[in-house]
Amino acid sequence: MIGRVLIYGGKGALGAACVSHYKANNYWVGSIDLNVNEEADASIVIPRDLGWEEQETAVLSKVDEVLAGEKLDAVICVAGGWAGGNAAKDLAKNADLMWRQSVWTSSISATVACKYLKNGGFITLTGAQAALQGTPGMIGYGMAKAAVHQLTRSLAGKNSGLPSEAIVVSILPVTLDTPMNRKWMPNADFGTWTPLAEVAGLFLKWTKGQNRPNSGDLLQLITKDGVTQLAAAN
Amino acid sequence: MIGRVLIYGGKGALGAACVSHYKANNYWVGSIDLNVNEEADASIVIPRDLGWEEQETAVLSKVDEVLAGEKLDAVICVAGGWAGGNAAKDLAKNADLMWRQSVWTSSISATVACKYLKNGGFITLTGAQAALQGTPGMIGYGMAKAAVHQLTRSLAGKNSGLPSEAIVVSILPVTLDTPMNRKWMPNADFGTWTPLAEVAGLFLKWTKGQNRPNSGDLLQLITKDGVTQLAAAN
Repeated sequence: MIGRVLIYGGKGALGAACVSHYKANNYWVGSIDLNVNEEADASIVIPRDLGWEEQETAVLSKVDEVLAGEKLDAVICVAGGWAGGNAAKDLAKNADLMWRQSVWTSSISATVACKYLKNGGFITLTGAQAALQGTPGMIGYGMAKAAVHQLTRSLAGKNSGLPSEAIVVSILPVTLDTPMNRKWMPNADFGTWTPLAEVAGLFLKWTKGQNRPNSGDLLQLITKDGVTQLAAAN
Repeated sequence: MIGRVLIYGGKGALGAACVSHYKANNYWVGSIDLNVNEEADASIVIPRDLGWEEQETAVLSKVDEVLAGEKLDAVICVAGGWAGGNAAKDLAKNADLMWRQSVWTSSISATVACKYLKNGGFITLTGAQAALQGTPGMIGYGMAKAAVHQLTRSLAGKNSGLPSEAIVVSILPVTLDTPMNRKWMPNADFGTWTPLAEVAGLFLKWTKGQNRPNSGDLLQLITKDGVTQLAAAN
C-alpha cells in the first residue's frame, strides 16, 4: 500500500472509476457517497436528510474514525449533478439541489483536506467548463459551479487552511463519457467526451506529484477525437 | 407616482437608503426584508425559518398581492451580509449563512423580475469586488458572491427568463459607508468607502433608463477621496 485517498462521490460514475484506478495502483481508498462502494476499503454513507453543517460534522467524524490517525495523500471530490432551467420557473428548487450536490460536497472536502491531508497533498474539486460564461439555460448549475471555481481559487490562497505545500485544482469537464450521458445524448459525438479513465489517470499522477498543475488552476478538459488536453482557464 | 420598484433587503442600511431615495422621487416602493420598513408603500416580511423554495413561494405570492396586477420598473436586491473564515473551521456554517443572505435573495429577486418586471425594466444584484479573486480569509462569502456574479451573467443571456429588453447588472462594492462598517472599522479611510446615497442615485438613474450599463456588467464601485467611479470587471 503506497498511500491513502478519499473519493467524495465514490459511487458515481467518475467516482467509481477513481476508486477502481487507485485500488489497482495499491492505494487505500475511502469512499464517501449516498450509497456504499463495495470496492473501497472504507465506505462512508451519508444519510440523505442531513443539513450542510450536520453533513460536515458527520463526515469529519467518520473520516477520523476510518483513518485511525493516518493522513491522506489526496482528496478527490467528484460528487455532483446536473439540472437545467432558467430563472422563470423552479430556480430555487434547481439551485438548491445543485448546491447540495456540488457545493456542500466540495466545501466538506475542503474541510476534510484541511484536517487530514498530508503536507504537500493534493485536492481536486469538480467545476464545469460551461460556467466560465453565463449559463442562462441552467442557472442553478452555473451558480453552484461558479462557487466551486471560487472555492478552488480561495483554497490556493494564503492561509486558506490547507496544509503547507498542498495543492488544489478543479477539473472543468465539457462532457464526461458516462453511461448516463450516453443514455440521454445517444446521438452526440462521443469522441469529444472525456473518458473517465483519463480523468482517474490524471488524478493518480497528480497524487504522486507527477506533472502537477499550479495550485488554484481551473483545468478545462478538452477532448477531441478521443484525445484529452488540459487548458487552464484565466 | 412615476413607477414602481421593489427593494429586497429594504430594511438594511443600503436598502433603507434606496427606499428613501425612490420615495423622494415619487416611486411606489415595496420592501422585502426580515423586518418591516415603515417608509415603504408595502413591506413584505419574510419569516426566518423558511427554506429556499418556501421563501421563493412566499415572496412570489406576497409580491403578486401587493402589485395587484401592476408591473415593476426595477427590482433592487441589496440583501446580504458578511462572514469571515477559511476552510479549516466552520466553513459549512459560514457558507450556509452567506448563501441564505446573498444567493437566496438574489435568485428569488431574479424570479420576481421574470414574472413582474416590465419589458425594458432593470434588475440589480449585489456582488463583491473581492470575489473577483480568491478569498481565502472569507471563503463562504466569496463562494456566495461568485454565485451572484454568475447569476448576473446568466440572466443577461438569451432565454434567461427576464422580460424582453430588461437589463441586469451587479454592483461590486469594495466597502460601503454604513454605520456598521464605521463601528467595526473606525480607523479606516472613509474617503474610500462608497456612500449609500451614491449607490441609490445610480439605481434611480438606471431605473429611468439614463446612462444604463451593459446588461450582465459586474460594476466595481471604486471610491477615492469620496468620489465613486464605475469599472466593469472583465
